Amino acid sequence: MATERPVPDKLRVFSLNCWGIRFFSQHCAQRYEMIGDLLDREQHDIALLQEVWSERDFLFLKRKLSSSHPYAHYFKSGVIGSGLAVFSRHRIQDALLYQYSLNGHPYMLRHGDWFGGKAVGLVIVDVFGLKAQVYVTHLHAEYSRAQDEYLPHRIVQSWELLQFVRHTSCGADVVILGGDLNMHPQDLGNRLIRAHTGLRDCYTETDTFDGCEDGHTLIAVNHFTKKQDLIPFEKGIRIDYILMKGSKKVSMKCESLSTTKGSVAGKPFPYSDHEALTAELTLLQSEESRQHGQRNISDSHTAVSEQMDVVAEAQAVVKEGLCHTETLQARALHLMGGALLLLLLPLLMILLPCLCSCSHFSFTTTGLLLAAGAVLLLSGLLLYLLFTTHIKVLKETEDQMKLTSDDLQSKLAGSRASGFSSSDGSPESSSPFKREE
Amino acid sequence: MATERPVPDKLRVFSLNCWGIRFFSQHCAQRYEMIGDLLDREQHDIALLQEVWSERDFLFLKRKLSSSHPYAHYFKSGVIGSGLAVFSRHRIQDALLYQYSLNGHPYMLRHGDWFGGKAVGLVIVDVFGLKAQVYVTHLHAEYSRAQDEYLPHRIVQSWELLQFVRHTSCGADVVILGGDLNMHPQDLGNRLIRAHTGLRDCYTETDTFDGCEDGHTLIAVNHFTKKQDLIPFEKGIRIDYILMKGSKKVSMKCESLSTTKGSVAGKPFPYSDHEALTAELTLLQSEESRQHGQRNISDSHTAVSEQMDVVAEAQAVVKEGLCHTETLQARALHLMGGALLLLLLPLLMILLPCLCSCSHFSFTTTGLLLAAGAVLLLSGLLLYLLFTTHIKVLKETEDQMKLTSDDLQSKLAGSRASGFSSSDGSPESSSPFKREE
Repeated sequence: MATERPVPDKLRVFSLNCWGIRFFSQHCAQRYEMIGDLLDREQHDIALLQEVWSERDFLFLKRKLSSSHPYAHYFKSGVIGSGLAVFSRHRIQDALLYQYSLNGHPYMLRHGDWFGGKAVGLVIVDVFGLKAQVYVTHLHAEYSRAQDEYLPHRIVQSWELLQFVRHTSCGADVVILGGDLNMHPQDLGNRLIRAHTGLRDCYTETDTFDGCEDGHTLIAVNHFTKKQDLIPFEKGIRIDYILMKGSKKVSMKCESLSTTKGSVAGKPFPYSDHEALTAELTLLQSEESRQHGQRNISDSHTAVSEQMDVVAEAQAVVKEGLCHTETLQARALHLMGGALLLLLLPLLMILLPCLCSCSHFSFTTTGLLLAAGAVLLLSGLLLYLLFTTHIKVLKETEDQMKLTSDDLQSKLAGSRASGFSSSDGSPESSSPFKREE
Repeated sequence: MATERPVPDKLRVFSLNCWGIRFFSQHCAQRYEMIGDLLDREQHDIALLQEVWSERDFLFLKRKLSSSHPYAHYFKSGVIGSGLAVFSRHRIQDALLYQYSLNGHPYMLRHGDWFGGKAVGLVIVDVFGLKAQVYVTHLHAEYSRAQDEYLPHRIVQSWELLQFVRHTSCGADVVILGGDLNMHPQDLGNRLIRAHTGLRDCYTETDTFDGCEDGHTLIAVNHFTKKQDLIPFEKGIRIDYILMKGSKKVSMKCESLSTTKGSVAGKPFPYSDHEALTAELTLLQSEESRQHGQRNISDSHTAVSEQMDVVAEAQAVVKEGLCHTETLQARALHLMGGALLLLLLPLLMILLPCLCSCSHFSFTTTGLLLAAGAVLLLSGLLLYLLFTTHIKVLKETEDQMKLTSDDLQSKLAGSRASGFSSSDGSPESSSPFKREE
């Protein structure tokens, strides 16, 4: 068994979707004041914020937290921004942003996710001399659970998130991911992320939880929540998370997790329409990392099977998304055809003078037809380009999932033939370069 | 000194910009036939192709190379695609795509880079039991060296490329990057990539080079090259590269590098308007990786200084790009203002009947004014959104560069105070968690 030596190093991580849409979100300025006070008082090691849509609000927090959290990064992308911000008591050494390739539709103005340029931000933080890779993200919202037209988008985002985490975290001592995933705990995207990154959900990992029932982060008793958005989950839903994993060198334990409970003592309204999460993580140094690593090998077969199942589910969703997007692409083509007809009509009116006997009729109608035709043609063209790029993204995701699926299949076949013999579950190689554990 | 034990494992890597624009690039189908024959005959371990714009051409190559290169991946992004393809004799285990955030302007139809969705593709290849991370990329073209309006775009792309490589390659045994960087060897972006990733240029690393003078990959004697594009570099330029680096476990040596020389024996035209590169890499297993790692420490101070200088240069370019984009954003606003005036004009014509005395004049003019106004308003809005996202990207890059610069500064300060004592150049930490070498 691994010898774990407890050290005094704890890490307190905070995550909150701030609902910071200026001039739209209620009591925005006052709430940022409250959030700033909370962070300044609580002195979390790392605070991960989402929906900080205005840079001015980020700068306000940065000034307010200059002594408690001297390090901060605000991730900028899309038209409005990613809304993602990190405040840290420890030095941020580096930052990297991965903008999701698929993120709703620009014409869905009332949803507006597209304009946010949703992304996953990574900051590399030097925590007690350890390399902590801290990810903050916000995935596309779910506007209707019964008819979720954005499901393929969220699955592609989950896939890109897990791929990004998987491939950037290999040198990390400690990995933390926080944010608003807009998915229930057992939703496909969530299972996909957990199964393929090895990240563990602080809520299910901790023995000490203090917060809303079932860990809900969107609850009916919150002043700002629209009750109809929660139907059929009257009590609430859990869509905000802090996930974590250690490394061969350091193992992590979630000592406790808490959420706010829909109100703030002495204040007339809560911090946001979401509840905030605070996780207290203990870092344990594994002296026998090799032995510790070995502990995971025994269940690799099950893990690989689970990974395969969840990828297969995701492949089906992406395939469906692809069919739907191809239909939309065809409709954009039809729109362009219709627009061309509209543009031809005025020509017909000139050629058939009888229709133009009333100059007032011609004057108004021709102008409107030309204007409408031009706008529709341009819109059709833009929609066609948009759906074409979406198809490209969906196909790329499909191909990547196929590769992963094939790789898992060969691992499974290898494990059947000889048993898992390397720590990452890959079969032994016959190469002169043997992997060192 | 490190004991390096040569092993028989060699790796032959091929890179070519295929210039595969269907119905535009000359002799496209015949050239793909020739490229397929070449790859099938030469049996390179890994072939990295760029500008494979049509998926049909990729599928043609895939069929043709099904026995010589059973593994392939085609990266899909943007409207047309990324144009990036990988063919491999070794199993591709996984793939990941990072699309560059800044890639020209959609309205520059004659340049067309924007539609390509330029990106860096990563495939993870199991080579002789080693984890090889192979990157293929194609950066924004340089249309005028004297007045390079896309320089900030290419610098942002270089930055994103180096960040992506830096953060995804930490678990690799072997790292290879190939592609058309559209930069001369000593151009800023190229220096930025080399300094911050540690990747080494096969051309400067090898003792055995066989190819065009000075390693040029775009040469005047190539049948397809537009001679005016090369001015003032009459003989040619070197913009295609194979870069490489090893790891603590494996060191790499470029045994030889060759290029095609503008013609193909027995054929009336060359493979492409670019020359192809072939690198023969030797993999050496470092038994004393710790000692081997130590070898790099002595020059860390110089390396950090160089990294700082090159980041400072890049920051200046990004700053300039930001100013220029802000001007463009303001112009888009003016365009929208002008369009609104155009839309108001027909209203004035209705209110001032004297102007409408000639019905034919009104009929045509009003229609055109309305159509032009609508199209200009929509165009102005789209341009405004476009430049707003570009500003976001430039600011994000600026922030990331600032973080890196600060981090390097603190490393330099640390090295002055105590000397570099850890292999990655970071000063010793006082943490209970000491980094293990």
